[in-house]
Amino acid sequence: MIKATVIGSGNVAQHLIQAFLKSDTIELQQVFSRQKESVLHLVDDSKIATNWQQLLESDIYIIAVSDSAIAEVSSNLPFKNRFVVHTSGGVPLEELDSKNRRGVFYPLQTFTKDKEVDFSKIPICLESEVDDDYTTLEDLAEAIGAKHYLISSNQRKSLHVAAVFVNNFTNHLYQIGKEICAEHQLPFEILKPLIAETAEKVQHLSPLEAQTGPAKRNDQNTIQAHLALLTNNMQKEIYKILTQSIQQSNVKKL
Amino acid sequence: MIKATVIGSGNVAQHLIQAFLKSDTIELQQVFSRQKESVLHLVDDSKIATNWQQLLESDIYIIAVSDSAIAEVSSNLPFKNRFVVHTSGGVPLEELDSKNRRGVFYPLQTFTKDKEVDFSKIPICLESEVDDDYTTLEDLAEAIGAKHYLISSNQRKSLHVAAVFVNNFTNHLYQIGKEICAEHQLPFEILKPLIAETAEKVQHLSPLEAQTGPAKRNDQNTIQAHLALLTNNMQKEIYKILTQSIQQSNVKKL
Repeated sequence: MIKATVIGSGNVAQHLIQAFLKSDTIELQQVFSRQKESVLHLVDDSKIATNWQQLLESDIYIIAVSDSAIAEVSSNLPFKNRFVVHTSGGVPLEELDSKNRRGVFYPLQTFTKDKEVDFSKIPICLESEVDDDYTTLEDLAEAIGAKHYLISSNQRKSLHVAAVFVNNFTNHLYQIGKEICAEHQLPFEILKPLIAETAEKVQHLSPLEAQTGPAKRNDQNTIQAHLALLTNNMQKEIYKILTQSIQQSNVKKL
Repeated sequence: MIKATVIGSGNVAQHLIQAFLKSDTIELQQVFSRQKESVLHLVDDSKIATNWQQLLESDIYIIAVSDSAIAEVSSNLPFKNRFVVHTSGGVPLEELDSKNRRGVFYPLQTFTKDKEVDFSKIPICLESEVDDDYTTLEDLAEAIGAKHYLISSNQRKSLHVAAVFVNNFTNHLYQIGKEICAEHQLPFEILKPLIAETAEKVQHLSPLEAQTGPAKRNDQNTIQAHLALLTNNMQKEIYKILTQSIQQSNVKKL
């Protein structure tokens, strides 16, 4: 059994708590949350710590709080030489206080409150200072059925940027699609199957093979007609630069 | 029974042929293809027309060829006053030769060769000059189980631009994600569940609600760190403009 303590009560913390409770090989030791109410629907009152002194000994302490709070929370821990990890894509291992053995347990996924998470479909990026601790991380990931990868802090930084492109920026393109629809009395509904299939396609094909459209074909008539149609300058600029970038990728491919 | 003739042998044509063959209420009258071989795996030799004079009478002729060939193909048809449609998002109804009654049957989806298509998940945009022909289009869409929408040529132009954003441009962001991974010895695999979930999220949430990330939070530290990490100038520019656009959306929302 791995004794695990979760520090935090946000989205990631709650999904981890739920996954840990379901696992046969993880004992959820405690949850640390200043506001008991935010986790009382998940764990018994007796398992909730609301101040640092109440924290019991655990095999691993998982800090699942906002990026900017990680350093401070790790300094507040009233013990040393234990195994403490954070769950962030954007924060290096070194931001954790060095009084404890440090590590990272970063689930690379976008979490939605109140939507159940299937950890078997979530890659978890692992990192630790000490080899033995890495085994704990692997066991923990496997106990919730997740795929795991050894990813260094440097790699994780780049992975986080890549994630911004395929998640944050992609979602914003959906938003632009929705705005264009709204402007022309079209239901956003109509784009949803296309959005789903676009993501589905690259699960099996490379994005370069999956690329289609006027930019790829260098169909200048259509490109100019589209630009003339866009009334929003920001949308025009985004259209231009992404078209240009697709065309550069084409050239690289040749 | 609707007698339908498909003109063309590309991706869209082949998927329509397969769907028509499965339907109980569509009779696939003929397929027109200059190269018999490209459709012989789908239909019997006797059903393939290789020159215009062989075309039999049909309730609807569906021109599924590349955008630039639509006008010419429609002029080549050796008959008049019949119902002729194209399947393109980017071409107005008026590009069809006016000697026939014109319409549009545009399935809004990205098709992959050799991958079976489930038309029940594909919205089809319909348009016709004559009211009675619209009924034929509705019947045809319903016969293959597809949702359909009345979309004017003007609306369809805008819808096509929106589709470029959520499909072509989104796919290109996946490509950038893959390039960043490759540069840092990370497997693209690791991003695939995130790509899938990002698309899944907006099936139920609005993109504005689903938006997360440093741009949304106006987390300048992370934004600057990401820009410093990107080695490719085009990627930097795309990062900047999409970050700026997300921030403008935030403001609009307030």
